[in-house]
Amino acid sequence: MATEFQTATAVTRNDDGSYAGAIAPDWGINGNANGGYVIALAARAMADAAGRPPLTVTAHYLTPGRPGPCTIDVDVVRVGGRTSTVRALLRSGDVGVAALLGAFGEQVEHGASIVDAAPPELPPIGDCPATKPPNVESGFGDRVDARVRPSDLGFAFGEHSGRGEIAGWFRLDDPDVDEPTFDAFGLLLAADAFAPVCFQFPEVTPGHAPTLELTVHVRGTPAPGPLRCRFTSRFLQQGLFEEDGEIWDASGKLVAQSRQLALIPRPAG
Amino acid sequence: MATEFQTATAVTRNDDGSYAGAIAPDWGINGNANGGYVIALAARAMADAAGRPPLTVTAHYLTPGRPGPCTIDVDVVRVGGRTSTVRALLRSGDVGVAALLGAFGEQVEHGASIVDAAPPELPPIGDCPATKPPNVESGFGDRVDARVRPSDLGFAFGEHSGRGEIAGWFRLDDPDVDEPTFDAFGLLLAADAFAPVCFQFPEVTPGHAPTLELTVHVRGTPAPGPLRCRFTSRFLQQGLFEEDGEIWDASGKLVAQSRQLALIPRPAG
Repeated sequence: MATEFQTATAVTRNDDGSYAGAIAPDWGINGNANGGYVIALAARAMADAAGRPPLTVTAHYLTPGRPGPCTIDVDVVRVGGRTSTVRALLRSGDVGVAALLGAFGEQVEHGASIVDAAPPELPPIGDCPATKPPNVESGFGDRVDARVRPSDLGFAFGEHSGRGEIAGWFRLDDPDVDEPTFDAFGLLLAADAFAPVCFQFPEVTPGHAPTLELTVHVRGTPAPGPLRCRFTSRFLQQGLFEEDGEIWDASGKLVAQSRQLALIPRPAG
Repeated sequence: MATEFQTATAVTRNDDGSYAGAIAPDWGINGNANGGYVIALAARAMADAAGRPPLTVTAHYLTPGRPGPCTIDVDVVRVGGRTSTVRALLRSGDVGVAALLGAFGEQVEHGASIVDAAPPELPPIGDCPATKPPNVESGFGDRVDARVRPSDLGFAFGEHSGRGEIAGWFRLDDPDVDEPTFDAFGLLLAADAFAPVCFQFPEVTPGHAPTLELTVHVRGTPAPGPLRCRFTSRFLQQGLFEEDGEIWDASGKLVAQSRQLALIPRPAG
């Protein structure tokens, strides 16, 4: 049975080689599609054209994604033995929503396996509050279940930690499938599902933190169960901050890394 | 006076909106152009089309860049108030060398400035050996002066640190200009100028570590003087490793971050 996420990111190939899809109305916040959802939708078309799953995808957001039909123009620029390189433009009619560039290839097991890091320590999922932003219409918040570690949640109540880190659990909240297993596309979604880390700093005025660039590296195939995510930022300067993500599966394996460059929210007026 | 680096990355606009340049013969290793040099060359065309300097550039390498004339096809997909989004394909005739996607915009000073990190501690530049790989023809090694911290250099003599870090000084070695100041394009070059960090691990067989994807975020305008660079890797698995770079200027300010996803070298045969 298809999950809600699979249905909301489904694409079909047009005769001219482009892909048809739709930005679903219920995967956004205040009517604007979530950035991870947009990347997953476009990556479905790119992966279909490549005949391979995502290994790394970079997205630049051009305009907020509004619900409705969309087209994904796809250009496979290289087919190699292990990976294919694909460019794409996701557009609503003539309005560009996102430009993407990615490499697609199967996960393989070979060579050295060295990990110098550990998943974030998290209380049981039931002890971590769901985080749906207040005073906004968030279909996205109903589709996913992002549970922030209580010690990272003070910012929501004006108690900023002053530490550039937000960690928590992540799973899909599906009406028909009990805790769907993540695939590579689900990892793309997870990479942009939590609040901006810059909210942890009292010097930052809360507000929209538009992403300039988001890159996700798929580093493994997740085991069943919820994901453990950690997002950090160390450099807020020149109006910009980076946000680095680590996504770990239930077995304790790193399955994705992400980095984005985003604008620090500007005070209103 | 133009520096050697400026001359080697110069481009001119063609009537059809594409750009003409040349992959210089002396910016490669064993006849293949350095990846940071390729990104800088393409970014010159992208920045000219945008009328703005690079803020973040992502490159996917398609085939090794060989010396000779090249064309950069450039497509400005969005012009915003602060940034422009640009796609590009650098090709030698019909052979694609690199596909790129970037955002271009001026450095501005506004908002919070928070840094939770420090530049790498390095001995004086004269105490750090120049690192030109043995037994290879490296024009690149003559154009730049990359000085690795002695405690990170054991790998070159079969004494692997087992620690995923290489740090060192970086400057341009110009015949006519005494220590040229870095601009944003020079930072793109610095992001791929050191040996792959995976060489620090005895489990990794030395060899070619092809980059799948390299993203550089320009985070500031460098002060005059040599750069201090730190490259780290924490996850070698599924045949791939990430390499995270921090580039600091002589005044102690972070001026660029980089991340690449690359293939762990495979044993010969």
